[in-house]
Amino acid sequence: MLHTIRSRSTATLKGGKGTSRITLGIGDDCALLRPRAGEELAVTTDLSIEGRHFRQEWHPPESVGHRTLARGLSDLAAMGARPVAAFLSLGLPQEMTIAPEGSKAWVERFLDGLFSLAAECNVPLAGGDLAESPVAIADIVLTGAVRQGKALLRSGAQPGDGIYVTGTLGGSAAELLALEKSPRSFAGCTQAGMDHPHLYPQPRIAQGLWLRKQGLASAAMDLSDGLSTDLTHLCTESGVAAEVDAEALPLDPGATLAMALHGGEDYELLFTASASAKIPIRIAGVPVTRIGRIRKISIGQPQIVLLTKDKSEPLHPRGWQHFTG
Amino acid sequence: MLHTIRSRSTATLKGGKGTSRITLGIGDDCALLRPRAGEELAVTTDLSIEGRHFRQEWHPPESVGHRTLARGLSDLAAMGARPVAAFLSLGLPQEMTIAPEGSKAWVERFLDGLFSLAAECNVPLAGGDLAESPVAIADIVLTGAVRQGKALLRSGAQPGDGIYVTGTLGGSAAELLALEKSPRSFAGCTQAGMDHPHLYPQPRIAQGLWLRKQGLASAAMDLSDGLSTDLTHLCTESGVAAEVDAEALPLDPGATLAMALHGGEDYELLFTASASAKIPIRIAGVPVTRIGRIRKISIGQPQIVLLTKDKSEPLHPRGWQHFTG
Repeated sequence: MLHTIRSRSTATLKGGKGTSRITLGIGDDCALLRPRAGEELAVTTDLSIEGRHFRQEWHPPESVGHRTLARGLSDLAAMGARPVAAFLSLGLPQEMTIAPEGSKAWVERFLDGLFSLAAECNVPLAGGDLAESPVAIADIVLTGAVRQGKALLRSGAQPGDGIYVTGTLGGSAAELLALEKSPRSFAGCTQAGMDHPHLYPQPRIAQGLWLRKQGLASAAMDLSDGLSTDLTHLCTESGVAAEVDAEALPLDPGATLAMALHGGEDYELLFTASASAKIPIRIAGVPVTRIGRIRKISIGQPQIVLLTKDKSEPLHPRGWQHFTG
Repeated sequence: MLHTIRSRSTATLKGGKGTSRITLGIGDDCALLRPRAGEELAVTTDLSIEGRHFRQEWHPPESVGHRTLARGLSDLAAMGARPVAAFLSLGLPQEMTIAPEGSKAWVERFLDGLFSLAAECNVPLAGGDLAESPVAIADIVLTGAVRQGKALLRSGAQPGDGIYVTGTLGGSAAELLALEKSPRSFAGCTQAGMDHPHLYPQPRIAQGLWLRKQGLASAAMDLSDGLSTDLTHLCTESGVAAEVDAEALPLDPGATLAMALHGGEDYELLFTASASAKIPIRIAGVPVTRIGRIRKISIGQPQIVLLTKDKSEPLHPRGWQHFTG
């Protein structure tokens, strides 16, 4: 098992284009990463747990592998960082490592999905850990490089800034609902594709890099917990308030307004830019939509307000909670 | 819960002595690490799973927290790297986050143990993830800095080199056996101390740094899986064979020879140095013992041989296996 991961990882390492600057990969106590002069290293970790983040009955294993890596890559995208290397800690019940007659083991298919996205984004797997576990868990660590002092942060939004999102919202929640109702009709979805916002989300690496290079965004983060929750985080870190125009939200064709506001796991970028910044309608092929504006915070007023045609109401964070207790 | 970890982490971040060069900690999509010029970054991940790496019935929560961090720090020590920052992904059942009347929640005590060792080793917690999980799992990521091209690797051992270990061997296995027999007598072991090689192992950071700075070690790794398994890894990576002198092994007072050879989790350093290198009998206060020598590999001969007074026998890797299947 460990051997399989190691040999596949080595292939990825060798397959890199020399941009990653990994001087030592799997097989020693640590991997060694060598940032270029003037760069700093962004690090993020994301935990995926069976029953909480995915279900064997619902998610094709390839989707679980893809989503595991996509979550970490999306955090790098949000900082405007270039992916350098991934590290995977995998805990699995024994049976998920054994191939049924004539087919692949769950873990092999999981790795197919993970390595497929890794190859697409040119990010090698440089290390990790493996252990037996009563439930499947995957912790992904992503490292990325960004020019010193130039990373996109959550804390830079200013009153008057416009609020933007990439892509469409609510598609993941809509597809998850369909998946819950009829898992069988998704069993064949073993390849990444544009039409699977939940099973195969696309981390917005190119869009994050573009925003950082242009210096247009005042703040940025990725939409993992849902717009209502994530925009609250961004406003809190920036010490500002916000207005969202309900009618401006780029709903996924299958999504309701509630899904777009609270659904989560869209892995689109949420960013702000000054009113005078010229934000294009597409960045690296993905549509960009202005959905509201940053306001000064006022004591006694809701931090986020949702504006519809005839009224204005507080928008409370109702997305993903990491711990309900 | 997340708030507790965040506020305690922030305290650690602020408490650092400016050596860590973390420009951004918990609260954004990624942490940002800025290595000094001429340094590279060592990265390691270690997964701890309830029932596999620890048991609630046996291990005081403070010990689980200490051991989680110690595993990662020991990997840094093995590279001769200076700790920069730790990242913790924690999956917990709800009940482990709730404090029983008049006492602390399991997770609070876990964090007490983890932050206590973190403070001792001056390593801040710079990020992580938290989720609900049917069993307790903790994945620790450690990052460390090391002069470019100077890290201690597993692959540099040469025929003729001496083989050395720090500290004593088998103490962890011996204490684990005592713990299994009588967990109650260890329930009060909630503080790190010298007499608990299993519950509170001491990562050999200072010894690793010393070896790297002196340039004396030709290869190094940490003893996590047991001498028989770890020395096999080192020899395989170096393309060499080895002889171990059974009578030279620095057994912990409570340990048998088998525990010293195969027990694992001693978190001492295993290193090699040329026959002419002057290795002191103590490094940073910890005894160092020469336990054997590196040989040329010979086809048809065992890779590792154990020499006793009157015979020589093959020493097969019988330590920790990451996956038995």
